[in-house]
Amino acid sequence: MTSFLDRLRIELPIFQAPMAGVSTPALAAAVSDAGALGGIAVGAVDAADARTMIAEVRATTARPFNVNVFVHGPPRADPGREAAWLAGLAPAFRVYGAEPPTALRAIYRSFAEDDAMLGALVEAAPAVVSFHFGIPEPRRVSALRATGAVLVSSATSLAEGRAAEAAGVDAVVAQGYEAGGHRGVFDPTAPDERLGTLALTRLLVQRLGVPVIAAGGIMDGAEIAAVLRLGAVAAQLGTAFVACPESAASPAYRAALLGDDVHTVMTSGISGRPARCLVNRFTTLAEELTNGTPALTPPDYPIAYDAGKALHAAATARGEHGYGAQWAGQGAPLARALPASELVAALTRELRAAEQGSATRTD
Amino acid sequence: MTSFLDRLRIELPIFQAPMAGVSTPALAAAVSDAGALGGIAVGAVDAADARTMIAEVRATTARPFNVNVFVHGPPRADPGREAAWLAGLAPAFRVYGAEPPTALRAIYRSFAEDDAMLGALVEAAPAVVSFHFGIPEPRRVSALRATGAVLVSSATSLAEGRAAEAAGVDAVVAQGYEAGGHRGVFDPTAPDERLGTLALTRLLVQRLGVPVIAAGGIMDGAEIAAVLRLGAVAAQLGTAFVACPESAASPAYRAALLGDDVHTVMTSGISGRPARCLVNRFTTLAEELTNGTPALTPPDYPIAYDAGKALHAAATARGEHGYGAQWAGQGAPLARALPASELVAALTRELRAAEQGSATRTD
Repeated sequence: MTSFLDRLRIELPIFQAPMAGVSTPALAAAVSDAGALGGIAVGAVDAADARTMIAEVRATTARPFNVNVFVHGPPRADPGREAAWLAGLAPAFRVYGAEPPTALRAIYRSFAEDDAMLGALVEAAPAVVSFHFGIPEPRRVSALRATGAVLVSSATSLAEGRAAEAAGVDAVVAQGYEAGGHRGVFDPTAPDERLGTLALTRLLVQRLGVPVIAAGGIMDGAEIAAVLRLGAVAAQLGTAFVACPESAASPAYRAALLGDDVHTVMTSGISGRPARCLVNRFTTLAEELTNGTPALTPPDYPIAYDAGKALHAAATARGEHGYGAQWAGQGAPLARALPASELVAALTRELRAAEQGSATRTD
Repeated sequence: MTSFLDRLRIELPIFQAPMAGVSTPALAAAVSDAGALGGIAVGAVDAADARTMIAEVRATTARPFNVNVFVHGPPRADPGREAAWLAGLAPAFRVYGAEPPTALRAIYRSFAEDDAMLGALVEAAPAVVSFHFGIPEPRRVSALRATGAVLVSSATSLAEGRAAEAAGVDAVVAQGYEAGGHRGVFDPTAPDERLGTLALTRLLVQRLGVPVIAAGGIMDGAEIAAVLRLGAVAAQLGTAFVACPESAASPAYRAALLGDDVHTVMTSGISGRPARCLVNRFTTLAEELTNGTPALTPPDYPIAYDAGKALHAAATARGEHGYGAQWAGQGAPLARALPASELVAALTRELRAAEQGSATRTD
């Protein structure tokens, strides 16, 4: 257990989840400087922006950090499905005086086919590279491995964990159904057993030969202590860091997360892939469309996200923030707004206290 | 924390889930004799049988045990829905040379309206009485409290936990989405946030004033140690005990649970309420019917269960065991077949080892 953290050269068994669009170089640097593993995600930017982001982290910290890429299968354009989805969203656009786009495009490129991004990562050589939605082909894995990077893949099932291990990753993030944001399922059209963080982490610890990092619903040090008891080498927390001032979350997103009666739901309607979001106007609309008559199916990821972002922009222009992708995990009610360094310090105090048998929070 | 176990007069922070149809007086007695809290469920029997079962436990052990009742809202008969459901099941009946029943009935009586059962429990005065699916009206709670029983309710959400606390229960079982068998949701028609064991347990520990017992996906001592770190006073394990020789599980159910590639799914198609079951012929058929065209809705619990039991009987008569209610939680792949006393001893060794930092299993 210690050896994996030693290999990563981090002191604390805490990973900050590399949340595309929410994490920032400043957040990652603050977390890494505090002794945990900060992370940025480059799935929503191109290689040039990725280089800039990595340089920004390095301008602030000399500590190791994680760069996350999206390795989704190529989206299949389906003009009929896309037109039906846009027609379903159209009344919501019109509430805000807008029209839906006439066509949609795949707004993000998968790392599976992005040679420029591979080149940027090989050149920048971050200490950790993590994969979401799947594993790149062997030559890409080998190229990253040759940089000395520690390679990590998410897994939501034993089958995905075994595939990641077979592909040669150094560790697996067990992403439980509780987790906020995009669920890492490799094939979003396959049945999903929706394994919870506790059951999945323990199963992967028992069955895999590589270290397991637990993720999903973890918000405080007592929960970190809990997943370490399962045999995880570390816990990965995303939602816990969303309300940090260093994140890119909008004021409306922060306010929603820190509200009084906070609930989340898994939806494919925002981006085209299952993702856990705060219940808001968009998740409610998506549920209506996908359960309506006829029941609509969102376009493939990330084509649907093009529509979702347009709707969010139209609503925001009229002051309505409820169509944002307000990703959050099931631990959302326990979120707190602290600077990243203070949050890491609180998590550490709570972890130590829990190890001594006291499951208290320090907020 | 210790004081709650002291009040229960048990040594170990382990509850055996009181699984209707699977647990037996012999299982409950063996678990209680081993220092944990055994349990029986009387939701599927009448008051006379409940008296007999309680007497059978007491014939074997002098230790405290738990008697669980179902407190579901009254089912609403709906002849059209029931006829459509039976028509949907009919082809499966015919494969086994049978016809579906011509009408369905509510095969179980809710404790909410069962005065005979209340009388039996008041007379027998078990050490613990636990509620599933809801809380009885105040006069029933008061009558049970007057016996000195410790009262426990399941909760799948903060709202249910608060309702249980307001009704005066002594402790709450945080039943995560991982859990096998019937999900304890009070209102099965309301949206279900599907909170996982880790997130739900921590939330209830933080927000309620009563002790919390964690349930869902817990199969070994490392997982018990984990939920204790969350601040739970104990862990409740069901699936872990299904393969014990003292359980009433059929040979086919045991074989399915201990198979090589075990998966579970939440379905309302077997009984009419969401319940987690091993993926088998019945769960596959139920998914087809509820997602078909037209999409069928199962009759209310327990009316649908009347049909489900008839189909299981018809298939079993021809040697097909895949229509059984093979309830199991997401931890099913980690099930083991040990006598209950040996299982409790193994859980205890693993718990102690995990408390020392070693997340090993002893099987």
